[in-house]
Amino acid sequence: MSGGLRLDEIVARLGGMLQGDGSLVVSQVGSLLSAGAGEIAFIASPKYRAQLKRTKAAAVIVPPQFANDTTLPHIIHQNPYAYYARVVGLLNPALPGRSGVHPGAVVNSPLPASVSVGANAVIGDGVRIGENVTIYPGCVLGDGVAIGDDSVLHANVVVYDHCVIGRRAVIHAGAVIGADGFGFAKDGQHWVKIPQIGRVVIGDDVEIGANTSIDRGALDDTVIGNGVKLDNQIQVAHNVSIGDHTAMAGCVGIAGSARIGRRCTVGGAAMISGHLEIADDVHVSAGTLVAKSLSQPGAYTGIFPLATHHEWLHNAAQIKRLVKLAERVAELEKTIELMGKTS
Amino acid sequence: MSGGLRLDEIVARLGGMLQGDGSLVVSQVGSLLSAGAGEIAFIASPKYRAQLKRTKAAAVIVPPQFANDTTLPHIIHQNPYAYYARVVGLLNPALPGRSGVHPGAVVNSPLPASVSVGANAVIGDGVRIGENVTIYPGCVLGDGVAIGDDSVLHANVVVYDHCVIGRRAVIHAGAVIGADGFGFAKDGQHWVKIPQIGRVVIGDDVEIGANTSIDRGALDDTVIGNGVKLDNQIQVAHNVSIGDHTAMAGCVGIAGSARIGRRCTVGGAAMISGHLEIADDVHVSAGTLVAKSLSQPGAYTGIFPLATHHEWLHNAAQIKRLVKLAERVAELEKTIELMGKTS
Amino acid sequence: MSGGLRLDEIVARLGGMLQGDGSLVVSQVGSLLSAGAGEIAFIASPKYRAQLKRTKAAAVIVPPQFANDTTLPHIIHQNPYAYYARVVGLLNPALPGRSGVHPGAVVNSPLPASVSVGANAVIGDGVRIGENVTIYPGCVLGDGVAIGDDSVLHANVVVYDHCVIGRRAVIHAGAVIGADGFGFAKDGQHWVKIPQIGRVVIGDDVEIGANTSIDRGALDDTVIGNGVKLDNQIQVAHNVSIGDHTAMAGCVGIAGSARIGRRCTVGGAAMISGHLEIADDVHVSAGTLVAKSLSQPGAYTGIFPLATHHEWLHNAAQIKRLVKLAERVAELEKTIELMGKTS
Repeated sequence: MSGGLRLDEIVARLGGMLQGDGSLVVSQVGSLLSAGAGEIAFIASPKYRAQLKRTKAAAVIVPPQFANDTTLPHIIHQNPYAYYARVVGLLNPALPGRSGVHPGAVVNSPLPASVSVGANAVIGDGVRIGENVTIYPGCVLGDGVAIGDDSVLHANVVVYDHCVIGRRAVIHAGAVIGADGFGFAKDGQHWVKIPQIGRVVIGDDVEIGANTSIDRGALDDTVIGNGVKLDNQIQVAHNVSIGDHTAMAGCVGIAGSARIGRRCTVGGAAMISGHLEIADDVHVSAGTLVAKSLSQPGAYTGIFPLATHHEWLHNAAQIKRLVKLAERVAELEKTIELMGKTS
Repeated sequence: MSGGLRLDEIVARLGGMLQGDGSLVVSQVGSLLSAGAGEIAFIASPKYRAQLKRTKAAAVIVPPQFANDTTLPHIIHQNPYAYYARVVGLLNPALPGRSGVHPGAVVNSPLPASVSVGANAVIGDGVRIGENVTIYPGCVLGDGVAIGDDSVLHANVVVYDHCVIGRRAVIHAGAVIGADGFGFAKDGQHWVKIPQIGRVVIGDDVEIGANTSIDRGALDDTVIGNGVKLDNQIQVAHNVSIGDHTAMAGCVGIAGSARIGRRCTVGGAAMISGHLEIADDVHVSAGTLVAKSLSQPGAYTGIFPLATHHEWLHNAAQIKRLVKLAERVAELEKTIELMGKTS
Repeated sequence: MSGGLRLDEIVARLGGMLQGDGSLVVSQVGSLLSAGAGEIAFIASPKYRAQLKRTKAAAVIVPPQFANDTTLPHIIHQNPYAYYARVVGLLNPALPGRSGVHPGAVVNSPLPASVSVGANAVIGDGVRIGENVTIYPGCVLGDGVAIGDDSVLHANVVVYDHCVIGRRAVIHAGAVIGADGFGFAKDGQHWVKIPQIGRVVIGDDVEIGANTSIDRGALDDTVIGNGVKLDNQIQVAHNVSIGDHTAMAGCVGIAGSARIGRRCTVGGAAMISGHLEIADDVHVSAGTLVAKSLSQPGAYTGIFPLATHHEWLHNAAQIKRLVKLAERVAELEKTIELMGKTS
């Protein structure tokens, strides 16, 4: 936490229009409900308007249409949520990095002086690392890996040989980049391993969650576009490509060679089958299996609705009789048509 | 494995009523079917009564109602399964810990002499660790972390800065506690990261499985209650709270700000959506997506019933015509009502 | 990448029948669509026949029935895909291992000279490791672990005490073998931990993906057969047994004591409930929950079909009225039968 910032300093740095006392100092953010003295909140949606009236925050960030709804000092901005995100960053700056290589690290490649490498990290041969990169303890980077400026690899991240990570990446603990894709050819009852000789190539501004895995390509590369955000426990198979600015929630799985468009969102635990294409701006609901290509933008869902276990037993039993039920209805229709004619 | 215990020693330590030869020594546990000489089994449910008659175990743990069903030496207890769990512990005590800090560990905080820190573990600044804590090799603890007495962190666990873990925790290999929550604000087509400044706060007697991830809170903390048991590969998003004694099986995902009650159970690969509340004593079936709050205790399910792929193709096709089918039935009802009137 | 191989050298090593110029050198593989000069492609299915005619590959691997469909030099083999897999291996040999123990590794057991142990790996007491095993940096092997000849453990793999891994294993980064199974007995509202005293025993020729977890058995062992292939992010619970040559895609979960047969395939994110048996040669579709034993080979599926979110809302609403709908149809049938009699 910083020592706090005056509202006029915030506006000078982030833009927006200030109304009220610019000398007011805020030192932390909070929600409309929880914020108190010295804290700044935001409102983006009309449904929180009642909370805006009652908030004990010292100041608020509001969109133009709510500018008159508060007597508190406020900053007006078209996108209060994104503005708020930036204020959180200003008020909670990352601690100054301890650059330099810990003596317990094993580094086999020359690094810029601005790079920080934690204890027991291991960096292979021919690795190229940009300026101001932070490698936390326990990370293992294979030979020939490349990492762009200002990226952060949290503890125990593994990057296999020759994978490429762009600038400003944030990769969380336990993530594995570049393990072999799951490629085997059947030979009788045995599986013959197909060596996986592609790489993983990750664009700029990508965040990758804890314990997420992204496999290297079989022949060509697995490609993660710019600005992609992947949550924890995600599995990205070989030769997948994910378009710029697509975001995926935790536990998602993407099977091999799937091509996901730009600006898509994928809900938690959704699964995307292999060898299909998903258009730009597709939104897949949590828990949904996508087993075919989706060529049109829009929202897609496929989940069995929740019920009490007792109700579910009854309704699930009907699922197995659906074809029969449809046949019975068709039969009734025929009978009635006949009755209509004969009567 | 210990050298074995006499039945009367077991009863002296764990309670229960002994019937039969108290000098009998058992050295291991087993199931009714597999146990042999020197082994003790248990029965909790009437459905294993036939196995009780045939068991070759040396002794058994039985509930009062089955006390007369066996001629073997037996211990009578109201909860034979929990009793058995404790007997497993007595007969298979953990090896005496090798306390002390391995010379290959990197420790930047003072630790009690009773603590064990394995090779290549890394412990940051300002870390507070209780008595008899065991940190296995390769663990990385950020600055300001706190861990209560008698906890065990298995190999390669990562705990981010300022997270708090209670007493008697067992955290399995590869678990990640305190990575950033998945918080981004949309700005045009870009995502703006919202720094995650909350912590993870974990109560006493919590077990966390291998490769499970628990994210730190955005503003407030992510909170795991006392006695919570989480299996492997679970994802707990930011600001989730899990009530005391709730247990979740492998591959479960909990989205942001979900509030789960006490004494709940969640089956494997179930998903719980964000910003909802689940009451105490709710039981969610494996594979079920919970997309709304559940205010009543009870069992809830929502899974598509399994069939052969061939049958599934037919029934799944009907799902897409369900609305139409319902309309056809309504139409029939109207026609028949009309026919009834006109006839 | 090797310097390339003549087609007649490939046939001398791998078999098959050569037609065309055996002195042609190929240095890499490619798909029919992407391969160019110096590259060899393959065709296995008639649906790529058109691509075969247009390919710019230097040579192709074909099954007998397509031998006359190309004028390029070609190798005829009954199983072009498995043949191709082996060619990829020939043309992309693993780099010669750097055998020996890195000075930063901590090794408490005697190892063969042919073994390679990377920086900061930790190997416990009484560990038995075969010839030519490669242990990457950051791996942690507990006491009494056994690993067969020619196995590779990628970075940051954890193997708990006394687990056994066969020959030629490939275990990817972040995998955890032998964590405690999820075993607790309920005692009032508390859970009593049941110490997990079984092991994990893994056969020969097994591949295990990144961040996959396989739990040790409660009493008996968790058993993974020969030739089993597990993708990333898989959870295998205690006392599961998986038959030889079964393959599972990413994000699959297998609950405790499930017995899976041989030569099965399990699609991504499928879940298999505990204490059931699955026959040999069963194929479970992605996203499917298997909650009962499957005694017959074949393909099984249980997923809610995908739709636009709008359509889904309508069809899902009908699911909850299915029992009622079936009752209405039965009512109509009765009414009509009555009308038939009275008319």
